[in-house]
Amino acid sequence: MTATSMLFSCSMHVGVSNPMMASKSSACCLSNRPSSHSKSISSCGQFGVSGKSKLLCRASALQVESAPSFSVGQKFQFDDVIEAQQFDRETLNAIFEVARSMENIRNNSSGSQMLKGYLMATLFYEPSTRTRLSFESAMRRLGGDVLTTENAREFSSAAKGETLEDTIRTVEGYSDIIVLRHFESGAARRAATTASIPVINAGDGPGQHPTQALLDIYTIEREIGKLDGIKVGLVGDLANGRTVRSLAYLLAKYHDVKIYFVSPNVVKMKYFFFIG
Amino acid sequence: MTATSMLFSCSMHVGVSNPMMASKSSACCLSNRPSSHSKSISSCGQFGVSGKSKLLCRASALQVESAPSFSVGQKFQFDDVIEAQQFDRETLNAIFEVARSMENIRNNSSGSQMLKGYLMATLFYEPSTRTRLSFESAMRRLGGDVLTTENAREFSSAAKGETLEDTIRTVEGYSDIIVLRHFESGAARRAATTASIPVINAGDGPGQHPTQALLDIYTIEREIGKLDGIKVGLVGDLANGRTVRSLAYLLAKYHDVKIYFVSPNVVKMKYFFFIG
Amino acid sequence: MTATSMLFSCSMHVGVSNPMMASKSSACCLSNRPSSHSKSISSCGQFGVSGKSKLLCRASALQVESAPSFSVGQKFQFDDVIEAQQFDRETLNAIFEVARSMENIRNNSSGSQMLKGYLMATLFYEPSTRTRLSFESAMRRLGGDVLTTENAREFSSAAKGETLEDTIRTVEGYSDIIVLRHFESGAARRAATTASIPVINAGDGPGQHPTQALLDIYTIEREIGKLDGIKVGLVGDLANGRTVRSLAYLLAKYHDVKIYFVSPNVVKMKYFFFIG
Repeated sequence: MTATSMLFSCSMHVGVSNPMMASKSSACCLSNRPSSHSKSISSCGQFGVSGKSKLLCRASALQVESAPSFSVGQKFQFDDVIEAQQFDRETLNAIFEVARSMENIRNNSSGSQMLKGYLMATLFYEPSTRTRLSFESAMRRLGGDVLTTENAREFSSAAKGETLEDTIRTVEGYSDIIVLRHFESGAARRAATTASIPVINAGDGPGQHPTQALLDIYTIEREIGKLDGIKVGLVGDLANGRTVRSLAYLLAKYHDVKIYFVSPNVVKMKYFFFIG
Repeated sequence: MTATSMLFSCSMHVGVSNPMMASKSSACCLSNRPSSHSKSISSCGQFGVSGKSKLLCRASALQVESAPSFSVGQKFQFDDVIEAQQFDRETLNAIFEVARSMENIRNNSSGSQMLKGYLMATLFYEPSTRTRLSFESAMRRLGGDVLTTENAREFSSAAKGETLEDTIRTVEGYSDIIVLRHFESGAARRAATTASIPVINAGDGPGQHPTQALLDIYTIEREIGKLDGIKVGLVGDLANGRTVRSLAYLLAKYHDVKIYFVSPNVVKMKYFFFIG
Repeated sequence: MTATSMLFSCSMHVGVSNPMMASKSSACCLSNRPSSHSKSISSCGQFGVSGKSKLLCRASALQVESAPSFSVGQKFQFDDVIEAQQFDRETLNAIFEVARSMENIRNNSSGSQMLKGYLMATLFYEPSTRTRLSFESAMRRLGGDVLTTENAREFSSAAKGETLEDTIRTVEGYSDIIVLRHFESGAARRAATTASIPVINAGDGPGQHPTQALLDIYTIEREIGKLDGIKVGLVGDLANGRTVRSLAYLLAKYHDVKIYFVSPNVVKMKYFFFIG
């Protein structure tokens, strides 16, 4: 479970680029924090860009004050993290590489302050202690701060008819990134469309749960040593299993992967689009 | 909505004066943190005072380490923030001036640490994600820390018969300032009477919501460019609208303001005392 | 109530030893943070040990950067804090000594950063605002950070059949120490058996509440000036009063203490083992 923190550390690290880091290391070209509120979740090399354009570039060494230095082999940049289909094989490898490098930070919690000064809002419309705390632990381990709500559905104006979009427009004024858990499929995409800051989908109804799937595939790779050519059985309530759906999309990026969907007929996998 | 943070940043900044700042800048005369637990929410110039006495004085430049410097034109000092009637025109202008100066801090979140080492308790007996997160965001943006409860009514000993006063006496031992949201009108005043540390009313039943009203009037002034001579329509459930009541009190401080109360008869504004 | 923070500050300070401190002061021999995840809640002198072995040693001065220096007269070391029976008279005196020394830190909240970089998870399966905030305040006053859940019973997968052990195995990956409040007697011991990091019992059903009892006995000693030879009446629902049970165990460590259990027959103290 610890790896959740690491993986998310990874995505967070790339999520909110830090001007302090840029000034510390000329080799690091994370985009400066956009004053215009253009969104960017990115990690890149010498030609980092901000905003919505997405470039591929090679990264050189990334150095963080008083933290173990680590290198980023490849670039990944997203406006938001909404669904597993966003990640191609090259991006996944880059994320794994950063995640491995950051395991040292996890083991030396006082090591990193790379997200110092940044605020993450964990907006949970559906309670999930484990998922919420994994994001919050990652943020704190990297020196960032957290605004949290355990149960926005019950504890907010949602009951009074306030829309998700209303809430997002408010919370984006308070924070640098929003982690959203919602009970409706598609909610994360709606939030991302509304928000001028990055949104990470931490599970939306029976939709997707991409960061959990990133953790799962990272764990499989670490335990088995490879992802190409493996056989994976996905067992249980596949109709409503958002994590399983996200994981299947990620596994489909690798060669000769066999996925066995095992479930009672009534909750079998409803749809799954595989595009080479 | 972002301005909520700023405005509150403003009131927080003045809420808990910081000895570190005083030592950094002789031009700043915020009162030192009172060891005797005498309360003071203040911002003042060269003749700052602590405790409950309230002096008016001109401020000189206020400099904060590694933050954009800003100046405070006039002094404001409160033991607590309970109702809109506490604010006169001069005070409102002083608050607006600080708020404008602090917008730069908001845009450079790593800029300020002026509340480093201070703890704010957000004690919410009634859930309100937006209001709570606005206070917490402001506190964190200024380097302070937060103790939070989303739903003290359900999650505390309130159900077991513990009084608000009991809870306040406990929480004042944990924190430097209390932000209270309560379901009963007058609760904030009761808390302030009990507490030896400052209390900010973040909405008390159908009573008042002064910080929300400060945000509203600040926004009106920024959008329209003036407050004297404006016409404002207040529409909706005015009988129970605490923010509307607080805003009406603030607007009444300006010249030639016309307020139109628009509501069904059954929820019309019940009382409103205007004292020139 | 404030003393709760102090006492817990004390136990936290000894809970997670800080390598930064060790490097600052050769007189301090707190065990370095164990990379192998061996647990230790300890404060000791020149011969500090990590892991589960428990040694007694005299401590010399303990100095913390920019905090009032304080000395630890005697050593105390626990893997976990589960029940009052763990504390002998010598240990209690050592804890009181540290608590008295740390009152200065409480009064100068920006003074200490001795737990900087450490994360405490407050895992509350039963709401208790006062107990939870006391732990969180102590952690923040010492520079540490907090992951919090107000109501894990309702807001987690507990409702879906996830066991306490499952949750502990997850949360131990996120944090350095777990403070557990649970509705079942014995839950804290089960959690401690599972966890590789220290667990503090913040109340487990009708079982025990050792840190609250530490506060109570510390307060009695401070108010009356002694613990030997005192007469104490414990009044109320003694059958279900976990704090009363824990306090009785602590009081039994002192000489000539008379405890009067006062309760209706139906809720009288069920069992209490006194071992000289």
